[in-house]
This record gives sequence, C-alpha cells and structure tokens, in this order.
Amino acid sequence: MDKLSSLTRFKAACPFLGKTKTSTLRTLSTSSSPRFPSLSALTERATKCPVMGPALNVRSKEIVAGYASVAANADVDKIHKDKGVFPPPGATVEMCPHASAARAAAQMADDLASATVKKGKPKTVAEEASAAGCPFHAKAAAADAPKPAAAAAPKKVHSGFNYESFYVNELEKKHQDKSYRYFNNINRLAAKFPVAHTHTVKEEVEVWCANDYLGMGNNPVVLESMHRTLDKYGHGAGGTRNIAGNGAMHLALEQELANLHRKDAALVFSSCYVANDATLSTLGTKLPGCVFFSDTMNHASMIQGMRHSPAKRVLFKHNDLEDLEAKLKQYPKETPKIIAFESVYSMCGSIGPIKEICDLAEQYGALTFLDEVHAVGLYGPRGAGVAEHLDYDAQLAAGDSSLPIKGSVMDRVDIITGTLGKAYGAVGGYIAGSDDFVDMIRSYAPGFIFTTALPPAVVAGARASVVYQKNYVGDRQLKQANVREVKRRFAELDVPVVPGPSHIVPVLVGDAALAKAASDKLLSEHNIYVQSINYPTVAVGEERLRITVTPRHTLEQMDKLVAAVDQIFNELGINRTQDWKAAGGRAGVGMPNGVDEVEPIWNDKQLGLLDGTTPLTLREGQKAAVDTQAVVKAREVFDPLLGPITGPLQATRTTHLQYELVTRPKPRQQIPKMQTGGVPLNVDIPVPPPSAAISA
Amino acid sequence: MDKLSSLTRFKAACPFLGKTKTSTLRTLSTSSSPRFPSLSALTERATKCPVMGPALNVRSKEIVAGYASVAANADVDKIHKDKGVFPPPGATVEMCPHASAARAAAQMADDLASATVKKGKPKTVAEEASAAGCPFHAKAAAADAPKPAAAAAPKKVHSGFNYESFYVNELEKKHQDKSYRYFNNINRLAAKFPVAHTHTVKEEVEVWCANDYLGMGNNPVVLESMHRTLDKYGHGAGGTRNIAGNGAMHLALEQELANLHRKDAALVFSSCYVANDATLSTLGTKLPGCVFFSDTMNHASMIQGMRHSPAKRVLFKHNDLEDLEAKLKQYPKETPKIIAFESVYSMCGSIGPIKEICDLAEQYGALTFLDEVHAVGLYGPRGAGVAEHLDYDAQLAAGDSSLPIKGSVMDRVDIITGTLGKAYGAVGGYIAGSDDFVDMIRSYAPGFIFTTALPPAVVAGARASVVYQKNYVGDRQLKQANVREVKRRFAELDVPVVPGPSHIVPVLVGDAALAKAASDKLLSEHNIYVQSINYPTVAVGEERLRITVTPRHTLEQMDKLVAAVDQIFNELGINRTQDWKAAGGRAGVGMPNGVDEVEPIWNDKQLGLLDGTTPLTLREGQKAAVDTQAVVKAREVFDPLLGPITGPLQATRTTHLQYELVTRPKPRQQIPKMQTGGVPLNVDIPVPPPSAAISA
Repeated sequence: MDKLSSLTRFKAACPFLGKTKTSTLRTLSTSSSPRFPSLSALTERATKCPVMGPALNVRSKEIVAGYASVAANADVDKIHKDKGVFPPPGATVEMCPHASAARAAAQMADDLASATVKKGKPKTVAEEASAAGCPFHAKAAAADAPKPAAAAAPKKVHSGFNYESFYVNELEKKHQDKSYRYFNNINRLAAKFPVAHTHTVKEEVEVWCANDYLGMGNNPVVLESMHRTLDKYGHGAGGTRNIAGNGAMHLALEQELANLHRKDAALVFSSCYVANDATLSTLGTKLPGCVFFSDTMNHASMIQGMRHSPAKRVLFKHNDLEDLEAKLKQYPKETPKIIAFESVYSMCGSIGPIKEICDLAEQYGALTFLDEVHAVGLYGPRGAGVAEHLDYDAQLAAGDSSLPIKGSVMDRVDIITGTLGKAYGAVGGYIAGSDDFVDMIRSYAPGFIFTTALPPAVVAGARASVVYQKNYVGDRQLKQANVREVKRRFAELDVPVVPGPSHIVPVLVGDAALAKAASDKLLSEHNIYVQSINYPTVAVGEERLRITVTPRHTLEQMDKLVAAVDQIFNELGINRTQDWKAAGGRAGVGMPNGVDEVEPIWNDKQLGLLDGTTPLTLREGQKAAVDTQAVVKAREVFDPLLGPITGPLQATRTTHLQYELVTRPKPRQQIPKMQTGGVPLNVDIPVPPPSAAISA
Repeated sequence: MDKLSSLTRFKAACPFLGKTKTSTLRTLSTSSSPRFPSLSALTERATKCPVMGPALNVRSKEIVAGYASVAANADVDKIHKDKGVFPPPGATVEMCPHASAARAAAQMADDLASATVKKGKPKTVAEEASAAGCPFHAKAAAADAPKPAAAAAPKKVHSGFNYESFYVNELEKKHQDKSYRYFNNINRLAAKFPVAHTHTVKEEVEVWCANDYLGMGNNPVVLESMHRTLDKYGHGAGGTRNIAGNGAMHLALEQELANLHRKDAALVFSSCYVANDATLSTLGTKLPGCVFFSDTMNHASMIQGMRHSPAKRVLFKHNDLEDLEAKLKQYPKETPKIIAFESVYSMCGSIGPIKEICDLAEQYGALTFLDEVHAVGLYGPRGAGVAEHLDYDAQLAAGDSSLPIKGSVMDRVDIITGTLGKAYGAVGGYIAGSDDFVDMIRSYAPGFIFTTALPPAVVAGARASVVYQKNYVGDRQLKQANVREVKRRFAELDVPVVPGPSHIVPVLVGDAALAKAASDKLLSEHNIYVQSINYPTVAVGEERLRITVTPRHTLEQMDKLVAAVDQIFNELGINRTQDWKAAGGRAGVGMPNGVDEVEPIWNDKQLGLLDGTTPLTLREGQKAAVDTQAVVKAREVFDPLLGPITGPLQATRTTHLQYELVTRPKPRQQIPKMQTGGVPLNVDIPVPPPSAAISA
C-alpha cells in the first residue's frame, strides 16, 4: 500500500482530519524526509502568536487539538491512542495531516514573530495575526500553509479552462479580504441549554450567539410532540406538497401561523430564505412593471429574491422614511410597488418603522412585505412579532381570534414572512397574507412547488412551539429583562453596544481581525462562544460581537460573560465607548447627537416591571420554568392526529432536561375571549415568577 | 356579533373549512335567504357528475366530506357534532362554508348534466368534468363556484394598482389551463408503510407515488438515531452554519456523503432544490463567460439555478449526445462550460448517458454537473447512484474507501448533487466534488450561507439511512425486482407504461382531465393514492400516473393496484398500448421503431436473479426485513457523539413497527477491504432473502 493510500485511510479514521485537503495528503506522502522544522520547535514558536499563544500555553491539548493542533509528537500519538486511531503501516506521526496543520501554524507564528508588534496599537497586531492566519482551524492552517515548491497539484486538470485554479483563486480572494469563514464545531446540548460541546463531547462552552432565542429547541412539549410524531409518521414527508408530502400536520401548522398573524392564510417553506427568495422573485416576475423599494440593510434572502426577478430594485436608506417617500414619489400611483423591509434587523438590532411605512404604502399604492424573522416568537403578546407588539393591548385582548383587528399595524401589513428556525427553535420559514396572495405563491413559486415538504415531526415541533409561545408571555418578558441587564452591565463598564430597541446586543469592536481575535479568545480562554460578525455582513469598521441573551442564561453566566468581554477588551486594547466618542462615534456608539439611549420596544409595563410580575432571572442550578397552561394548550392541538395525552411530559428517553412545570395564578381581571373591533383595551396579563413544580 | 364574525369563528373551529376563502364567507354572510337550491337537491344533482358521482354514491361522508362535502344538512350537522364543532349564535348549517362548497359542487354537476356526454370518447367527458371542476377539494369548489352578483369583494383594495385582482387573475390562468394544483391530504404511517391516512385518521389509503423509495423514513435504526439525537441535542440547529449551527452531526454527514461518492468533500443544504439553485447560480455568476449546456428535461431547481446567473444557457435535446456535441463545438475550448444533466429523469424514468457526456466534457473542456436526486440510495452497490452503478463490480470491490476509482464514471463526473429527501427518507440536499469546489460554494453561495442549518436529529436520521443503505443492497434489489413485476403485469394487460431502464413506472394517460379523473377514482374507489402528473411537469398529451414501487409493497397490494388501474382504464376508456400503437405512438409507448423494450439498468446478476439471492416480495402480513449487519454499522457511527448502544432497537415508544431483523450468511468469497486501483474486479456479494429474526 502506498503512502497516499495509508494517509487517506488514516485521515478517514482520525477524528481531527475530516477536512484536511487531499492535496495536503499528497504533499505529505511525497515528502519522506521532513521538509519542516521539528514539531516541538514549531509548537514553541506557535506560542509566540499573540492571538493563539495564550490558548496554547493554557490548554493546548484540549482546545486547540480540535481545531489545528499544535501539540508535540508525543501528544499527537497519545490523542490518537486515546481515540483508538492507529496509523496504518508505513504512516508515521509526521505524516498525520493533523500534525501538518501544526507545522503550518508554527510557520505562521514564525511570520508573526518577525512582525513588529506595536504596543498600544492592538489593531495592527491583530491585523498581522490575522494576516498570518491564526490556526484555530485545520482548514485555515491548511489553506494558508506555505506550500513546498515540489507540491505539484494533483488536482484534476480539465483541458481548456482550469476550473480548479479558478476555485482556488476565488477562495484566495476571501482569504485576502478576511471574509473567509471558519465554522466552529458547536453542539448545543438539550439538557444543558445554553451550553454546547465542541468537537469533543468532553469540552463544553456557553453559547451566547445562537438564534434559538428562547430555548424552544429543548422545550419539553416540543420534544414530546416530535417524538410522538416521529413514532407515528416516521421521518421524511416522502414527497413534494403536491405528491404525497402534504399532510394534516402541514395544513395545521399553516392554519396556526395564519391565526398567529390574523391573516387569511400562510404557507410553509423549507426555510425563510426560500420563503423570501421565492415570494419576492415570483411577485417581481409576475407583477407587470413592478418596482421594489428595499431597505439597504435587508437580509440576503430578500436581496436574492428581488434580484431573481426582472423587477427594478430601488434602495432606500436604512429606516429612512424621507428617502423612501422621495423614491416612491417618482413612480405613478398605478405602478405596482413592493416595499420590502424587516421588523428587527438582526445584525444591528434596529427596528423598522412599520406603521409609518404602512402609511407611505397606502399613500403611494404599494404592497408592504415585512420580514419578521428575528421578531416572531419574541414580540407581541402572542409572539406574532413587532407588528403585533405595536398594538399590544388590543392584540392581547383579541386572544386567539383569527380575525384581523381593523386598523392595527399587523392588519395593515400585506405580507408577513417569518421563520420557525429561530425563536421557535425549529427549522423552516413561512409567508402569511391574503388567501389569494398565498394561493398564487403556492401555485407559481418553483422554490415552493418543486421541493420536498418538511418532515412531519419537524412541523409538529414547530407547531408545538408556536402554540406554547402564543399562550405564554413569560419567556419573552424574561428574555427582554435579561437583555436589559446585560446591556446595563456593559454600559457600566464602558463596553460599547450598538444602541437599539430590540433584543440584539451588538458589541462594537470596529475591526475584523480584532473581532475575530476577541471571539477566539472568548472561546479558548473563557469557554464562551460568540461568533464575530465581519464584512460583508456588516460594514467595514463596524465589525462586532453579536450577543444573543436568552431567558435561560443564568445570572452567573452573565457575570462571566461581562467580565470576560471586559477583560478581552483590555487585553486586545479594543476601543471603549469613550474612545469612540472621542473619535466622533461609530455605528451609533458615542455619536455626537447622543443616540446611545434608545427606548426599548418592550416597555416596563409589558415586561411586568410595574407590578413585579416579570419572571426572575435564573440562578445557577435553578431549573427553567415551563408553563403548565401553555403545555396543555400545545398538547391539545395534536389530539386529532396523535390521540389525547395526559400525565407527565415525555420529552426524552435518555436525557434529563432541566425544567420544572409551573402554574400561573389567574389574571387579576378576566380577559375577554375575543375582540373584533379595533379599540385597544387597557388590559394586562400578569405572569408570576416560577412557583412550585406541580409535575415533571 | 355580526354574521361574518360568526362565520369566521365557525370557520376557525370547523375541521373542514381551513381553506375556505374569506370572500366566500362574506358572500354567505350577506345572503340571508338561500340563493341556491336546497342542499339535498344539490347533492342529488352532484351525483350526476361522472367523476365524483360514483364516489358520492359509495361513501359520501367518509371521503368526500374531507374535500368538499356534498352531504345533506343532517350530515353536516352530524359531522360537526361528532367533531365537537357548534355553530355560533346566528350561524346556521346553510351558512357553513363547508355546505357552500357542496352548493358549488352541485352547480358544477348541473353544468355537467347539461353537457353532451359522448360515449366512447371519454376524453371529452372528462374534460368537461374538469372544466366544471370536480369538487374533491374545497378550494376548487370555492374558486369555481358561480359568484352571486351581490358579492362585492370585501378584499383589501389598495389605492393605485389592484393587487388582489391581480392574484385572482393569475390563479384563474391556472384554472383555465388546468395546471392549478390540488393537494391531497396524505399522512404516511410509519407502522403501516406504504399505507397513509387521509384528512381523517380513520381513512387509510395505499400510497403508490411517494418518493420515500425504500421506506427508509420508518427504518428502525433511522428512527432510533433520531430519537437519541433529539434527546441529546434538542430540535433546531439554532443558527446558520456560521453562527452556532455547525455541529459534529453536520460535519459527519458531509464526510459520509463525500465517502459515498468517493469525492474530496460534500456540503449539505436545506434541500436539493437549494443545492442545485445555489450551486449553479454561483458557478454561473463567478465563472467568467460561463455557458451552461442543459438537458431539456432538467429539473426546475437546475433551471432556476442557471437562470439566476448571468451565464448563457444552451439547451440540448433530452439525452441527445449529437445535439450536445454540436452545441459544445460552437464555443472555444477555453470558454468555461457546464453540462448540467440528471441520472434518473424522474417523470419519464429515462437515464442520462453519463459516461458519454463525460467523454464530451473532456473533449470540449466542460465541467459535468450531475443531479443524482432520484438515483442516490437506489443504484450502485452502495447506493451512490447511477454513476456508481455503471462500474458496479469495481465499486463494490472498493468497499468503504474514500479514494476515487481512477477512470470510473463516478470519478469522472466533477459535481454530483443528491437528496436526502427521497430514497434516504429524510429531508435536505447536498453537493459533492473537489475540496476547493465545495469550499468555494460554501464561501460564496448565499442560499447556503444565510440559512439556518438542518436540525441535528434530521441530519442524524439522514446519516443513519445513508450508512444503512451503503451496507445493505437488498432493499435496492427487491425494489427493482418489484418494479419489474409491476411493469410486467401492466404489459400483460396492455396498460401503457412509458418505457425506461429505471425504477419509475409512468403509466401513460395522455390527457390532463383523464389523468386527474383516474387519480381521483383510484383514491375514492380503490383507496389507492397515485398523483396524476400534468403539464407543465410533463408535455401536454403526455399526462400520466407516476407510480413508484417500493420493496415494501406486498404482492397483494400489487394485485390490487394493477387490477384497479386496469378497471379504471376500462371505465374511463383510456387508451391502451395497442391504441397508441395504432395512433403512431406517444411518449415512447407503441412507437413504430419499437423502443418499448428497454434493458433495465439493474441486470439480472446484480439483482441476484442468477443465483436466486434476490429478496422475496413481501406477502400480506409479512414483516419487512431489516438487515442486522447494516443496523450495526449505522449504530456504530453515532458512538462518538451519542455513546455506544447495543441490544434491541428502540425505534419508537408508541408505535409497533412491522419489521424483523435478519442476518446475512457470509459472502461466498471474501471481499477485499479496499481497492485503490482502477481495475474492475469480478466479485459479487450475494444477499440472501430474509431469514429468521434474531432480535427485534
């Protein structure tokens, strides 16, 4: 057996090498004598890297091994033995591509060591660290490793155009502009939310950036519903909605979502990316002479959808009504127009002026297309989003009625799109609107028609989640209360947070390399996972750590997060709010006009702060509260298909979830069951803090 | 409370009215005195409809109620009471939109009765039936119902362009050209595969058109893996792959798929629609001056992907190498070119000439992009698809090696796309190819980057399925053997089947209305669900019933299917093969050049027919065979994340699946573990029929 074959088998067996390039293996297999310095020497040099060095010193084996490994030969051997991986005959430790990543890492460290480190100018250091490539990931190391001249690429060479070189060049561009993405290996644990394990089940980190905003991915009634549905209907839907894939679960979810938004109808897609793309491209293609008016901060899915139609796309400045109006004015009233915008802009946490955009839409004859992806489940008395939230009391009073509330913001919006993959903790997306609109999209959008329906169990999990959140406001309240607390603490420490009225906590770093370095340090030194957000997702110079706070983060976890961020800001010399102020402000932080203070969309009364009914932030060891009444509601909806169920929740067979069922006292005044008029009623529904468990 | 509100509440509660249009409700609410004939009179008239009449006579309440209901007042009352639905004050049975559908249905029946029924020319009858609209679906009835002049549309009217009218007009076009789709309510039961229940759990039908080709959606090791993963990791992935959604399950699945196709790497998407769309549009956008060469029968997802790029798209005739070459020739060799095609074309069952297209690609410097969506899991010794199947013996001998087999067809194809949603019984899609190609798509395709990752449990189910099928060929063999049997029986009865070498059994009907009528009759009179396939999915005049045969259909179910189709062909006077022959042939049936005979791609030896090792077709009451060795393999792969598991399969908690574990005797000769060269070895791996259960 030749060396390449040996290495390939070795690669298949080695738990760390999944992503090692075949070309790297080939290079290694042809260099029988070491072309690189010894591993230990390289490891020593790697520790000089200002970014990864500290991590290496602290716990090289545990953390770093999973990403790139800079352990010495003996360590590599030991790891392989622990994992039951044995090199095939002829393969040595030096040939393990795992070790080769270490070589690449060390080479980078070497490059770094020769760079001038300017004290007090951490940006430059970090930039150089980034330019050399911090080897936290095998792919990074492999991609950036200096390649020996002898490495004749054994890639397939096509006659004519060289496709493989083209791919390499395109990737090189990403490396050059620092937009190449390294995925962390994060496995969120149902029993330990918000904790996840990394590449190894033994290493755990606290997750502070997931979009499972409320922890519904491990809500016991969600899991119970999924297990039951899986038992009854198996895994896949078995076809498109047209052919064998259209089931009662799907129809019921769509009815639930239509009710949530008090619209005629809803339609579920594989994802909200597909929902936005398919709906906007279909409308733009079908509506004669259609013009899109698109907020400059709109999500990629909406941009793609508009681009995928021949319709003209006019951009308006983010949340700028004057600019929007000026542009709407330029077209005759009869021209079909679509204003496409979002409620919560997820990277900066700003909120669209929905009501005012509806005003303009009515004035200029435009359709409103509102993406509530980062708002559904999180805003409004029933979790229908910001549009619902804006008429909080009236929407609350209307209860579970499917009827629109005349004149309410949610009623005035023509098309609402949402996701099941964030606050609802599932996957999939949807649109809601008038019967004929939804039926037209159902009938014409290829992205809906020609794709396999979501699995029934996934649909059931999503529905249980929607119903639960419709019937329990406590998670939303506690989430927002925790967000306020985290923002308050950062403000106390002068850590800059991009101001906004929503649940997003964007900690401004203002530099791509620094943001990535901060994220890496949080992970490697503090077991805290917050992904850095760089260009093109945010503008250059506005790079940030996007923190998402859930109702399930404990006070102790908050303490740890805030202290860690503060420490890393010191260590990397990242600008504080005062620094930005001195520099004239950036991304809303330290601006001369003082927009740092923004009124949160959840007011004190809605949060239960006025009457003290806000659920309490969890303390370490406390179990999460699961609302009994909402569980009963969520179970009931499955009776017709799965049969009635009572008794303890059967959320899992093998895992002990940390929750307790709590019951709410009756509201102080009776809530009218239904409200068909448009008059906001001054009624609030107090939700008490978790009380004694009644069953689990 | 006004009548409209009452009706709307009634609608929300009534299990049959979910899709009733609000406009219909409004119309009803304003017509206090009955504007229509009595329900019973209407019902009587409805039975005259040649399409729905027989169904009404036989079992109106059970079947028809779910779709449109033509039951009398008393029946409507009774159904409501059974379901616990009570009309609100002021609402009467006549106001139930459920009943209104019956009115519409009856009106259509009336229209039909006045039409001339030409005996022996069933096409005309069915066309008229269809033109009047057979009320098997509430929406159809509502859409086609004659609207009273007083029905002032209470839809939202925008100033300027009238969007709601636009939607209605677009839908009307679909009704006019008969391409409007009615979704059946089909809920496939894990414990009774291939049986599903319809809108009510009490009514069961046999499914003969799903794309869960092997029944893997209820394979016990698939379900066990999903339950375990759900317990450990909860529901949603919690983010995009870049932010918190990239887990060990995802990486492992991609490694498994790369290995399956013996490619460097693979990447998983929400669906293969998204995979095709995102990959082709990204390549077409990035490759300078790229030209696509696209088979005319390509799937919508590929067409969209190509359209979503600025690249030129050149169509070549279906499977026509001469035409393809003539078009390739017109471009310089250096021009980047992509030949996009499929292995199994799912609506006609033809198979692309993969090897020959690779020859042309190499000659003219083109990339090959092969969609194996309807082939993965079903062809090849390990289920990697038709490309693998074409080198059956060599691929079998190479076992689980990740190394490409030099010169093999699968190695020569540059890009393979596949789905997890059909033969693997899950959901999701993927691409496989070179490291740098996959990394480029991962880095640039918005449809991949900006979407929530699939849930870990879904990914685990898909992986268990892939591993199981890699290690057990019996399902593939039995499926193809059953396909042969069904085709043989149809041929005996002169029922026309579009000839093809694959597993698809397209029964030619040749008329849209007849195809729909045949499908409806199969469902209503025989409890057999086969969706009809009409334009634009197939050409006008080539409408068909697309039958999919699985290894889990019993001999008795085949008997019933074949007899039912034969009977309906008689009743509706649908053309037989002889009729098409006399008419000069159509869609390959009865063609003068005699292409009716096509060599199946699975030859007798591969099927185990030569040595009698083909698994036996199931008989009623027999349990499906589940291969012990493959179960062990599929369980093993989860050990690192979920911990080791032994003992009985814990597939479900509440449902008793009908399967038995069987074990295979050793192959007659030892299979070499790995094969790195390119020499096909003449080795076969006999798989015996199911033997005694060892544990369940």
